[in-house]
Amino acid sequence: MKLWGGRFEKSTAPEMDALGSSIGFDRRLAFEDVRINRAYSRELRAVGVLTDAELATILEGLDRVEAELRTHPPLEDEDIHTAVERMLAASIDDPEIASKVPTGRSRNDLSVTELRLYLASALDSTLEAVTQLEKALVEAASRCRDALLPGYTHLRRGQPVVFAQYLLAYFWALDRDRDRLRAARGRALGLALGAGALAGNPFGIDRGRLAEELGFESVLPNSIDAISSRDHLLELLSAAAILGTNLSRMSEDLILWSSAEYGFVVIDEAYATGSSLMPQKRNPDSLELIRGKSGRLAGNLVSLLTTVKGLPTGYQRDLQEDKEPVFDTLDTLHLVLPVMEGVIRTLEIDRDQMSRALSPDLLATDLAEYLVRKGVAFRNAHGIVGQVLRKASEKGVAPGELTVSELREFSPLFDDGVAEVWDYQKSVERRDSEGGVSLRAIDEQIQKAAQRL
Amino acid sequence: MKLWGGRFEKSTAPEMDALGSSIGFDRRLAFEDVRINRAYSRELRAVGVLTDAELATILEGLDRVEAELRTHPPLEDEDIHTAVERMLAASIDDPEIASKVPTGRSRNDLSVTELRLYLASALDSTLEAVTQLEKALVEAASRCRDALLPGYTHLRRGQPVVFAQYLLAYFWALDRDRDRLRAARGRALGLALGAGALAGNPFGIDRGRLAEELGFESVLPNSIDAISSRDHLLELLSAAAILGTNLSRMSEDLILWSSAEYGFVVIDEAYATGSSLMPQKRNPDSLELIRGKSGRLAGNLVSLLTTVKGLPTGYQRDLQEDKEPVFDTLDTLHLVLPVMEGVIRTLEIDRDQMSRALSPDLLATDLAEYLVRKGVAFRNAHGIVGQVLRKASEKGVAPGELTVSELREFSPLFDDGVAEVWDYQKSVERRDSEGGVSLRAIDEQIQKAAQRL
Amino acid sequence: MKLWGGRFEKSTAPEMDALGSSIGFDRRLAFEDVRINRAYSRELRAVGVLTDAELATILEGLDRVEAELRTHPPLEDEDIHTAVERMLAASIDDPEIASKVPTGRSRNDLSVTELRLYLASALDSTLEAVTQLEKALVEAASRCRDALLPGYTHLRRGQPVVFAQYLLAYFWALDRDRDRLRAARGRALGLALGAGALAGNPFGIDRGRLAEELGFESVLPNSIDAISSRDHLLELLSAAAILGTNLSRMSEDLILWSSAEYGFVVIDEAYATGSSLMPQKRNPDSLELIRGKSGRLAGNLVSLLTTVKGLPTGYQRDLQEDKEPVFDTLDTLHLVLPVMEGVIRTLEIDRDQMSRALSPDLLATDLAEYLVRKGVAFRNAHGIVGQVLRKASEKGVAPGELTVSELREFSPLFDDGVAEVWDYQKSVERRDSEGGVSLRAIDEQIQKAAQRL
Amino acid sequence: MKLWGGRFEKSTAPEMDALGSSIGFDRRLAFEDVRINRAYSRELRAVGVLTDAELATILEGLDRVEAELRTHPPLEDEDIHTAVERMLAASIDDPEIASKVPTGRSRNDLSVTELRLYLASALDSTLEAVTQLEKALVEAASRCRDALLPGYTHLRRGQPVVFAQYLLAYFWALDRDRDRLRAARGRALGLALGAGALAGNPFGIDRGRLAEELGFESVLPNSIDAISSRDHLLELLSAAAILGTNLSRMSEDLILWSSAEYGFVVIDEAYATGSSLMPQKRNPDSLELIRGKSGRLAGNLVSLLTTVKGLPTGYQRDLQEDKEPVFDTLDTLHLVLPVMEGVIRTLEIDRDQMSRALSPDLLATDLAEYLVRKGVAFRNAHGIVGQVLRKASEKGVAPGELTVSELREFSPLFDDGVAEVWDYQKSVERRDSEGGVSLRAIDEQIQKAAQRL
Repeated sequence: MKLWGGRFEKSTAPEMDALGSSIGFDRRLAFEDVRINRAYSRELRAVGVLTDAELATILEGLDRVEAELRTHPPLEDEDIHTAVERMLAASIDDPEIASKVPTGRSRNDLSVTELRLYLASALDSTLEAVTQLEKALVEAASRCRDALLPGYTHLRRGQPVVFAQYLLAYFWALDRDRDRLRAARGRALGLALGAGALAGNPFGIDRGRLAEELGFESVLPNSIDAISSRDHLLELLSAAAILGTNLSRMSEDLILWSSAEYGFVVIDEAYATGSSLMPQKRNPDSLELIRGKSGRLAGNLVSLLTTVKGLPTGYQRDLQEDKEPVFDTLDTLHLVLPVMEGVIRTLEIDRDQMSRALSPDLLATDLAEYLVRKGVAFRNAHGIVGQVLRKASEKGVAPGELTVSELREFSPLFDDGVAEVWDYQKSVERRDSEGGVSLRAIDEQIQKAAQRL
Repeated sequence: MKLWGGRFEKSTAPEMDALGSSIGFDRRLAFEDVRINRAYSRELRAVGVLTDAELATILEGLDRVEAELRTHPPLEDEDIHTAVERMLAASIDDPEIASKVPTGRSRNDLSVTELRLYLASALDSTLEAVTQLEKALVEAASRCRDALLPGYTHLRRGQPVVFAQYLLAYFWALDRDRDRLRAARGRALGLALGAGALAGNPFGIDRGRLAEELGFESVLPNSIDAISSRDHLLELLSAAAILGTNLSRMSEDLILWSSAEYGFVVIDEAYATGSSLMPQKRNPDSLELIRGKSGRLAGNLVSLLTTVKGLPTGYQRDLQEDKEPVFDTLDTLHLVLPVMEGVIRTLEIDRDQMSRALSPDLLATDLAEYLVRKGVAFRNAHGIVGQVLRKASEKGVAPGELTVSELREFSPLFDDGVAEVWDYQKSVERRDSEGGVSLRAIDEQIQKAAQRL
Repeated sequence: MKLWGGRFEKSTAPEMDALGSSIGFDRRLAFEDVRINRAYSRELRAVGVLTDAELATILEGLDRVEAELRTHPPLEDEDIHTAVERMLAASIDDPEIASKVPTGRSRNDLSVTELRLYLASALDSTLEAVTQLEKALVEAASRCRDALLPGYTHLRRGQPVVFAQYLLAYFWALDRDRDRLRAARGRALGLALGAGALAGNPFGIDRGRLAEELGFESVLPNSIDAISSRDHLLELLSAAAILGTNLSRMSEDLILWSSAEYGFVVIDEAYATGSSLMPQKRNPDSLELIRGKSGRLAGNLVSLLTTVKGLPTGYQRDLQEDKEPVFDTLDTLHLVLPVMEGVIRTLEIDRDQMSRALSPDLLATDLAEYLVRKGVAFRNAHGIVGQVLRKASEKGVAPGELTVSELREFSPLFDDGVAEVWDYQKSVERRDSEGGVSLRAIDEQIQKAAQRL
Repeated sequence: MKLWGGRFEKSTAPEMDALGSSIGFDRRLAFEDVRINRAYSRELRAVGVLTDAELATILEGLDRVEAELRTHPPLEDEDIHTAVERMLAASIDDPEIASKVPTGRSRNDLSVTELRLYLASALDSTLEAVTQLEKALVEAASRCRDALLPGYTHLRRGQPVVFAQYLLAYFWALDRDRDRLRAARGRALGLALGAGALAGNPFGIDRGRLAEELGFESVLPNSIDAISSRDHLLELLSAAAILGTNLSRMSEDLILWSSAEYGFVVIDEAYATGSSLMPQKRNPDSLELIRGKSGRLAGNLVSLLTTVKGLPTGYQRDLQEDKEPVFDTLDTLHLVLPVMEGVIRTLEIDRDQMSRALSPDLLATDLAEYLVRKGVAFRNAHGIVGQVLRKASEKGVAPGELTVSELREFSPLFDDGVAEVWDYQKSVERRDSEGGVSLRAIDEQIQKAAQRL
């Protein structure tokens, strides 16, 4: 069965059917299709296209269709709308009644509405998964408030920080991701139904009532825009691609830190795998896969950006290509988020190994600041410390092992108080401005994070 | 002058300097650099690093630097921060005072803060340009409320609509773009300054006060996130790329409609160009360029997505690559938006030509709906009309030229009232649900649009 | 069964299994896996790891596995290599013999080899499909050697050309695409097997002999490169994405030309579809889908580019993400190429409608050239013709309707010979340099094209 | 001056001029423009459009223009072709002679030809830079033929390899990149000139002779294809983007290996930079920038892919957007390749530190292979070794410290010969198949590499 073709004299070529068929992926929208058919039929009753009896027949038929969809998902029709229309006709005694359902409606407005409805609920679970991961991060941060380790820039040890600061950095990035996904969800929840093929509905359908019944937040105010626009999907794909890059960066950190060379953390075996050849291997595959999947999230975005670029306004069949990247992106998020949450929840940290990575040269900045507090201009202090470090390096000692008199060669302001500089804990405590790494600042930050959840 | 290197024994290779230099593009942030230096110096005074006299000297110096930047933009330094620091030292008697300004600060938090500040004002003018274009569309729509033309799907004439419906479709798409850009602006306005290189500020700086002074809406709550994250830039690049696809679709429409084949609109000569070879040509170059530039907007997004993918958290020098795509995207928007606005403001429409493109087969849907109103199930009505169209085609007449008795061969329900179907104006008026193309629906929509502005 | 894990104390988390499983897509490589197992086992016999009897047992087992794969494709294993290893063990009496097959081999070199082998044959059929499409174009061009129509630039009518010139333009673009795909195929055919996990093979395997047996063109000369590099896949994805843009442009042309506004060609009904709402519609869905699918081809390329960016050398699990974009790209080409071929083979052209689109202003360039031949400098001639066109436009006549004396107002060089200018056929014939649109040049071009096939 | 507009009544809007101007970037093609003007003028002489005297005048004028271009590059014209035409007219006494040069030519075929000519020479220097980098790698590999270190997969130590194997892995990847760039260069060298605006040349120009004079390898055989196609640029951008990912992976390796955690190599100070805040830092900025710039190479590719997608065949003004991504990509390659070469040429390796990273568990595979050589099926041997490793781990000793009798608990085949397994050098020597890491295999590989250069 095809929903068109009355005027056609020829059937489509098999390679054309293969190219055009969408049932392979749009059958995922089957239950949204049924749900919309219910609501739309009620509306057809309200405007007099259907009688009460016809409506009852249709609703019963749709119940049967829904049950059948659960057990026998359709595979052969051109698309899911055709399948549901065919199944409905088969499920009631008078198939003519079924064929009243699409009155004033087109696949253009129907399929757009289905996808929007699907997104709303799919994104609910995505948002929940992000939230769970955020919670895991806050909890882990609470446990590592005081675990000292080097903070890195350029993958070079920079200054002492606490491990919680990294976990909370992830938190805030994800929190922005959540906001973006939520905005995308909101934008998805505009009702397209009632736009018809492009010109609107001629049977007096009340779109506001339809929106309310289906759980949409607004009615799309322009019939052409409703069937033509895909920017809400691009927004979702963008938000997901950005989230993907954030997850890729977390993964990179954790892969490095769990390596023999760093040894700061241990990835639980439940999230690691071995090698088919090398018996000793324990690989962080979970994180590598999460990092790798940032590629497909970016690819899905580019796919749809490219497809819609330069299309004329209105429905073009090119737009059938909107669903697969969206589904793949949602599936990908549903795969990676719980794994990242599991990795974080089970992450063991090795405080000793973290400590061992601290070395006095990480306090070079503190040494410069020591001089600043004594009145040296910062740029000069920076230069003096550079000389101190060279001297220590030439002598083959740590800078903290230079005597005060050796230090005085570079500045007369050094005195015994300089010993305080060489304490990692104190260094961290000095960074007490909002957002810093002192215990107080971290606790304040954890509270803020908890409030966001 | 370099801001680092005390510990280095060797100078960098010339090819390295060429690769690393950013003054070619980050000098655009010169005034933000000065502005931030002012605010930060005040804060250094507040915490006692500077004396009142030193602060005064610095502020006067910064005034001189600002003036010099206007007339002699620096070209040779490694980056704009180095340039301003050098110029400040040169502009005051005691250069040591200048060298106190960077106390507790790093290029990491400074450069991020500059770019965020720059974005806020650049996006203000982008948002204004979008708004102006939206206004032009609403005004044009008001002038074309009743200009009938075919509505297209698949670039095939579908049903009669009014030209205003197209213009308003553009409006709503742009309105969502504006929302996305505004969200990106909001996200940009978090203060990074005070994050230092990564570990926060050890001199008791009040970041809330700094944020207020500089016009930021919030303080970024984590020092590592502050210097490391770029998702706010990706969000902006995404919003712009999506806007780009919306503009590319408008352009495609207008290019087609202004062609000899359609002739619906005339692009003003101010936005057209000729050919160096073919004297008769009048080409819609403005719209072609706008359509073409959707490519660079997508490219800029991919550029930064790729760059940040898989980076460890923390500042990595790769992130220097964040500025050029952002600047190019903003510049591109500033080029294309006013041109699109000009095209719309000066667009002439040719109602006669639009009318000539209407033909009775565009009312096939109305004919089916006629039967529906008489009780025929829609799917059957669709089939009957398919046969009617074939018949008319075989006879070589328009479907409206078939007699009622000829029509009755296909359904006994046809009667004289069918004549009403063949009226384009009435067809449009029947599509009166919210978002439809009836005059009433269009007026309602124009009001809604006006409220958004 | 897992091929690793002897050292593990814990099983993987279910969400980790879901994330890591690749059998859903790599089972497509099942027959390559078997084929490679056969060749590798023979090599293990040659170096003495297997006895003749063991080899015979294994080969018989692999035959049974191959048969079973055809009827019962595995769905539950971690990946296809695990599945085949499990099935082989199950298919022979002494499973220990089966467990000798992976000696000295890793999934790293095995899976890379499988994909390369798969590509070679998949690309053979892609190349054949491109060739068929090229043939269809040459044949169609031969039929339209003299069908005059406007040549377009900027979607504005420029100069008269023949329709064959467009069809041949497509031919040459596709011919370059074929060259690129062929180069990608050649690059794929390097043997990775024998690289082990990364360090090479310690059992004296003769990789040259293996390459020959499996049909590879060369042996990859470095074990780390062999398991790590994916640039041959990126090259294939690029070639396909570029082909996609070429097909998208052909589609755009044909969609426009088959519209009511142009009417130059008719798309056969076998490659068109109708509307579920508007009974009169006949939409060029085939071409829209081909145009739309250029998006996913670009997306697949970006997906893998992003995934491999910044990965350390060596196998990382991220690289498991290499297969799906490649499979999707190959599938997409296999869907779209035959449809485009069918569209071209069945394309009807409407010479009358093409002629009607010719108008004298398309000969403005010829008029300028007429003056050039009389000694006027081209830039001046261009200017004079501009004035002539304006004059004609003001008078409301075609430029060819101006009298010679009217023309002489603009240049005394006009004489009665100017009448020759207004002949479209002659205009075309004048463009007789290589690659031009004269009949002679077209015939020469068709011959060249035929030679390429 | 504009090269068109005779028929226009209005001048273009200033914002349109801003949008359309290309002199800012296409002035880079100034010398190609002059060179083509010379060749084309000679051809115009050959076909009689110019006299000998006119040709002489023009050639002298072009010499003056060329000299002026060197000292006073034009900044104000619409594009470089307009600038050169204007300058030529100004440089000779009778400007009318200058205005004969564009006879039969269009900016469409001219600008495409210029860019192709430019590419050929720009790619020559790119290819040379790749070759130099390849040479540096082979030389470095020759110096590190026997430097043992762990080979990594999943960023986990896998098996012992030699450092040369990594350097040579880079070599082979770059060698494929060079092949791809060379193919792109070849594809660029087709002559477009003579295609006119789209329909060919009506003055009998000999395009074969022109091609020869200008150094093109072939004549593009179709005038529409010549002015419309951009796939040769996409091919170049793809080749560069792929090269970018290869460089990003090398960078990632070297950044890691030069970190405190690995310490395998030292980046020369000439390619490192310091921190403005942290005096002790020595950051691998060179490599980070190279890694980061892989983003813009991917972005440039996507930019043009998106721009050309869905364009009708023929010149569209969108195609003006082809130059900037191409120039930016070439510039980027010219920046990064010499820096990478410098990094490799000056790279210090630390053999001691590499050795320290070797540990007996990296020989687990060798232990399994030991059992294989004694007749144990590999999969069983893999399991036995897993148990051995656990045992050693429980005992807190290295696996090589287990006694033979302890080992016999797991397999009776262990005997005193097992001691040989624990020798890293022997492990490497066993991997002697083509492409492996034995000294012999490495030397063979170095020879092959040298032959490629």
